[in-house]
Amino acid sequence: QTAAPARPGRLGLCAACHGANGHASMPGVPNLAGQQLDYLRDALRQYRDGRRNIPVMRAAIGPVSDAELDALARWYNVQPPQPQVQP
Amino acid sequence: QTAAPARPGRLGLCAACHGANGHASMPGVPNLAGQQLDYLRDALRQYRDGRRNIPVMRAAIGPVSDAELDALARWYNVQPPQPQVQP
Repeated sequence: QTAAPARPGRLGLCAACHGANGHASMPGVPNLAGQQLDYLRDALRQYRDGRRNIPVMRAAIGPVSDAELDALARWYNVQPPQPQVQP
Repeated sequence: QTAAPARPGRLGLCAACHGANGHASMPGVPNLAGQQLDYLRDALRQYRDGRRNIPVMRAAIGPVSDAELDALARWYNVQPPQPQVQP
């Protein structure tokens, strides 16, 4: 049994676009709630090393430590996803 | 009011890894159920033009028409997400 992760100290950096609960609030921004943990970790590595060259993500992640990135991935992995609100 | 999209003819290509319902069944593969539509479209374009250089995705998408890709993005956008099963 795994304890729920503590709210990461750097969550605010992500939450501005992805929401603290992983439900995106801006066009072009993905939901992260309930996303696969290994995929979240891979994506963060790809942003950091430029394989995904998205400037806002590279700027956001640049100063964040590996341990902090891992805490953020774990946080979003366990957030409950919500069905899309149909327009 | 928007009608639910018909099951895309090329869905099997995606479903092998992402599931027909968008719940990934393999390590390193993201869930797609309920993902933002514009994000799904952007990601497909990025795989196609190499900004996301993931060989399996480039191979899968290469022969698929733009209209088919759009149908696949719409399909996964409206699939209901499921909370992670905790180990």
